[in-house]
Amino acid sequence: MTWTVYLSGEIHTDWREQIEAGAKAAGLEVSFSAPVTHHEASDDVGVALLGKEPDKFWHDHKGAQINAIRTRTLIGKADIVVVRFGEKYKQWNAAFDAGYAAALGKPLIIMHQDEHAHALKEVDAAALAVARTPEEVVLILQYVIDGTLAGYTDKEAGR
Amino acid sequence: MTWTVYLSGEIHTDWREQIEAGAKAAGLEVSFSAPVTHHEASDDVGVALLGKEPDKFWHDHKGAQINAIRTRTLIGKADIVVVRFGEKYKQWNAAFDAGYAAALGKPLIIMHQDEHAHALKEVDAAALAVARTPEEVVLILQYVIDGTLAGYTDKEAGR
Amino acid sequence: MTWTVYLSGEIHTDWREQIEAGAKAAGLEVSFSAPVTHHEASDDVGVALLGKEPDKFWHDHKGAQINAIRTRTLIGKADIVVVRFGEKYKQWNAAFDAGYAAALGKPLIIMHQDEHAHALKEVDAAALAVARTPEEVVLILQYVIDGTLAGYTDKEAGR
Amino acid sequence: MTWTVYLSGEIHTDWREQIEAGAKAAGLEVSFSAPVTHHEASDDVGVALLGKEPDKFWHDHKGAQINAIRTRTLIGKADIVVVRFGEKYKQWNAAFDAGYAAALGKPLIIMHQDEHAHALKEVDAAALAVARTPEEVVLILQYVIDGTLAGYTDKEAGR
Amino acid sequence: MTWTVYLSGEIHTDWREQIEAGAKAAGLEVSFSAPVTHHEASDDVGVALLGKEPDKFWHDHKGAQINAIRTRTLIGKADIVVVRFGEKYKQWNAAFDAGYAAALGKPLIIMHQDEHAHALKEVDAAALAVARTPEEVVLILQYVIDGTLAGYTDKEAGR
Amino acid sequence: MTWTVYLSGEIHTDWREQIEAGAKAAGLEVSFSAPVTHHEASDDVGVALLGKEPDKFWHDHKGAQINAIRTRTLIGKADIVVVRFGEKYKQWNAAFDAGYAAALGKPLIIMHQDEHAHALKEVDAAALAVARTPEEVVLILQYVIDGTLAGYTDKEAGR
Amino acid sequence: MTWTVYLSGEIHTDWREQIEAGAKAAGLEVSFSAPVTHHEASDDVGVALLGKEPDKFWHDHKGAQINAIRTRTLIGKADIVVVRFGEKYKQWNAAFDAGYAAALGKPLIIMHQDEHAHALKEVDAAALAVARTPEEVVLILQYVIDGTLAGYTDKEAGR
Amino acid sequence: MTWTVYLSGEIHTDWREQIEAGAKAAGLEVSFSAPVTHHEASDDVGVALLGKEPDKFWHDHKGAQINAIRTRTLIGKADIVVVRFGEKYKQWNAAFDAGYAAALGKPLIIMHQDEHAHALKEVDAAALAVARTPEEVVLILQYVIDGTLAGYTDKEAGR
Repeated sequence: MTWTVYLSGEIHTDWREQIEAGAKAAGLEVSFSAPVTHHEASDDVGVALLGKEPDKFWHDHKGAQINAIRTRTLIGKADIVVVRFGEKYKQWNAAFDAGYAAALGKPLIIMHQDEHAHALKEVDAAALAVARTPEEVVLILQYVIDGTLAGYTDKEAGR
Repeated sequence: MTWTVYLSGEIHTDWREQIEAGAKAAGLEVSFSAPVTHHEASDDVGVALLGKEPDKFWHDHKGAQINAIRTRTLIGKADIVVVRFGEKYKQWNAAFDAGYAAALGKPLIIMHQDEHAHALKEVDAAALAVARTPEEVVLILQYVIDGTLAGYTDKEAGR
Repeated sequence: MTWTVYLSGEIHTDWREQIEAGAKAAGLEVSFSAPVTHHEASDDVGVALLGKEPDKFWHDHKGAQINAIRTRTLIGKADIVVVRFGEKYKQWNAAFDAGYAAALGKPLIIMHQDEHAHALKEVDAAALAVARTPEEVVLILQYVIDGTLAGYTDKEAGR
Repeated sequence: MTWTVYLSGEIHTDWREQIEAGAKAAGLEVSFSAPVTHHEASDDVGVALLGKEPDKFWHDHKGAQINAIRTRTLIGKADIVVVRFGEKYKQWNAAFDAGYAAALGKPLIIMHQDEHAHALKEVDAAALAVARTPEEVVLILQYVIDGTLAGYTDKEAGR
Repeated sequence: MTWTVYLSGEIHTDWREQIEAGAKAAGLEVSFSAPVTHHEASDDVGVALLGKEPDKFWHDHKGAQINAIRTRTLIGKADIVVVRFGEKYKQWNAAFDAGYAAALGKPLIIMHQDEHAHALKEVDAAALAVARTPEEVVLILQYVIDGTLAGYTDKEAGR
Repeated sequence: MTWTVYLSGEIHTDWREQIEAGAKAAGLEVSFSAPVTHHEASDDVGVALLGKEPDKFWHDHKGAQINAIRTRTLIGKADIVVVRFGEKYKQWNAAFDAGYAAALGKPLIIMHQDEHAHALKEVDAAALAVARTPEEVVLILQYVIDGTLAGYTDKEAGR
Repeated sequence: MTWTVYLSGEIHTDWREQIEAGAKAAGLEVSFSAPVTHHEASDDVGVALLGKEPDKFWHDHKGAQINAIRTRTLIGKADIVVVRFGEKYKQWNAAFDAGYAAALGKPLIIMHQDEHAHALKEVDAAALAVARTPEEVVLILQYVIDGTLAGYTDKEAGR
Repeated sequence: MTWTVYLSGEIHTDWREQIEAGAKAAGLEVSFSAPVTHHEASDDVGVALLGKEPDKFWHDHKGAQINAIRTRTLIGKADIVVVRFGEKYKQWNAAFDAGYAAALGKPLIIMHQDEHAHALKEVDAAALAVARTPEEVVLILQYVIDGTLAGYTDKEAGR
């Protein structure tokens, strides 16, 4: 079985690439999905494809709805949803995705620095793991998917 | 992942072929489905297969129910539902499909000309995109599936 | 038990009032719900409450979405959904509601004149009754709710 | 029918009281619910009831989970979910609630000032109405519940 | 809490009345529902209300669909479904109701004589109780609803 | 896409083989499933595998429950459920399967001879097609899956 | 709104009565439900009502299935499920109920002494609160239902 | 079709390997899944990956939640869930899994020795088969998947 993992949230660092590289190195049977992470494309897709809007609200609205075709579909198909909160910006879409995934019963892994712990306590409370780094997420995936935990299962094949 | 897209509605122009050709040209991993688009077959299938009906109502009913085996199954399996309203006819089955897909939580793309915008406002209000042409639908699919938006993501691979 | 019946569709004749009066005369334990049937209010509610839109599309969109808060909630709570198609207009919202209710598994009663039978065959095929008049709908409700059928159950209390 | 409306989000102004007072003045059949809005109680409930935690993360976690008993239950029972984003703080729990409600198919009304429109575009894209003030929310509820729109339905009883 | 119990199946003996009388005598908080049990009304309702059909198949079809408005709605609202198989006739509608209720996850009580046990083994296998008499069903309801079991809980109030 | 069709009901004639052969001859992308059709195996499986039961009721029960592991799983996975009623026996399990599939929203095709039409009217009323012969079922599948209807679509590829 | 709380698990102490008394004293709008807590009645109900079984396995089976009519229905209707693990016995039914409730998405409160914490870690991991005493459960309910937390909200009405 | 079978419960004997070997020998199209069965890894995974916890409760909690990512996902994907209760320990997680699977409607096979029959009666009552040995489970799978029952279907291919 190939596991499907959706990587939601922060788009300004290469945490997705790190997780994907780590999973590949670990030989995991896993397929990753994500929102479109090109910031400008994501902002402008509505008007670029379906016509300009003089009002910024509708400019944003048309784009956000097209993005939702992708994000809601991929979250709905995911076995696990990882949501990373970065150090800057409001990131309300990340928290929205976490709530959306939680209501669908998807196992949630939340990633953030300690400084955000208090502000994210309701989000963390819905998660099955709270991690700080891409490495930790890779190790969780390795354990969950392959049953491998360094120092424990090394001599015994996980399932 | 292969996306599944159901193409509902108007059956007198080649819009489905245009979308399929465009998706193929764009190299999208997508599989299309649709109702039987042969008008007379769709009308007569009930009596052709299960026996003549003197009453036109039951003639239609037997056919419409057999068509429903196909259409409800394929809508249920679709990741995205596109519904096109043409320029003529009542097209209540198109609006029915849109409502059916909406209640199942399927992302909806509605296609129609501007002149129908007011009459379709409740249908459009349930959609995540309202397009005018097959080209626009192809571009939406390309963005949603591949993350590609001309002028933005060209130099950066979508996911 | 009080049954809840949603009356969708055509808003230019008094068919809702006829059904409600008939149900009351028959002493049925039934509660009716419906969309806002004031045409102009329904068209303008978005901009009247949330600010003008120069573009007619968004004018319609804002109103249609507010109407959807009401209609989707009430259809979701209905035990039975009646959808009437009148003699004029596109009435795509009526067909949309029928599809929406069908996908939710709601028992559907469709009302229309014979002339629309062919165009409505897919909608009718999803219905459990196709009626022509408000009187017929009242009699169906009386049978379904009280088990009463004139000439049959008169001397025997329905359940 | 009594409508149930959950009021999520910002807890430092009296917007909930304003909406409740407005709804009462309008004579709406509506029942409101909300999270516990006492900030300190909400933060400390876990340790206050189930024992101190030296680690702030678990202090928060125990409280957030008890709050979730209340919030997820009440969102699940709501007909409409209103989420207000205030001017300060991260408010990730508000966005989480919006996503949670969206995935449950609840009609969403989002309240915020214009300055947050861009950051909230994904949240707004899932809403059926985006309002700025408690007054607007009351008017929306009045229209949705009673069918009343000032200047339109005054002489005609809503349903 | 009032429990709702749907009584499906055989309509030629007074077993429903016996169960209802027994439940009343036991003071149970229970509300019963059932199909229309007037055989001829149930057969003819379609044509009586919506117009004659020369073809017996459609005569039956129209009636059966109207009956389905009642039966599917009431099964859907029931907490418990009791299905009685009598000594005569095919009673396929009873077995259909049992399957329908089973797929909805409704607790099933099946009533029949020993002679039918083998033919009903798949139906019984989906049930939580297989009874022979109305008295047994009343005692089951008394235990399930009030926690009362003669000789055991007499001196101890059930919950 | 490969369609999955579950063939429920009568086990004493070769109707399943006829449908499978017809589908193969027509080149349909379809996969068939069915209950275990060996009558004695199906009756005795419980005691054969899990130990003898002196009481015939439990003998039957243990077997019927093991059969249910297969039948409920396969019905749950089917795109279309075909239920055939033969000329003999009670066949309550066939009607049970029809009800079970109906509640899951599976498109139903019912097969029976005209003489059973009245007794099966509630079952037929839940179906999207009522056929008499395996040939008819094959033609329905051919139309539904391939869009092919002899005399209509011959020159035009179905979708 | 009246909250419904199901009290599952250990039946040899008066913890249910303590919670009910505490909730009453606190004036909470709450309705409690529970399994039949009379041990012998619960064991024997199957054979007492539906006939003796020489084999103890079927004796137990008939009783356990009748109990399931009550327990699954009441868990399904509960807003909150409390499961108490006592100091003795296997109590597999308590853990079963916890898993059943968890899969239905019910908020879980688990009660047990510290000595069982390790053995119950998977059950606790699915809970939103882990308590030791009936008093703690009452305080949680008071907070969740009324928003009251001693020392915090005393001067401020909860919602 | 490949069937998916989740093997829950006891982790100290090689029953899983026996079932897998038996299924392989029988040539069944089946894929097995299971929790991580390395006891220490399963206990410590939380702190090993996400940081030490001085409090044993949180040590356990972090691990149990990561295990839940795996177990809930795999149970959710399983066609059949087998739960084995061994001779020692509390095994509440096994009973929890059984309840969890039951509420999801998964066909359950429970394995245990006779001595546990009474204590497991509620769990057994939710099962479609109660087996004692891995051999019995293999034979059940062989029958369910291939329709093969020794002595009955040997000369006749199952489906």
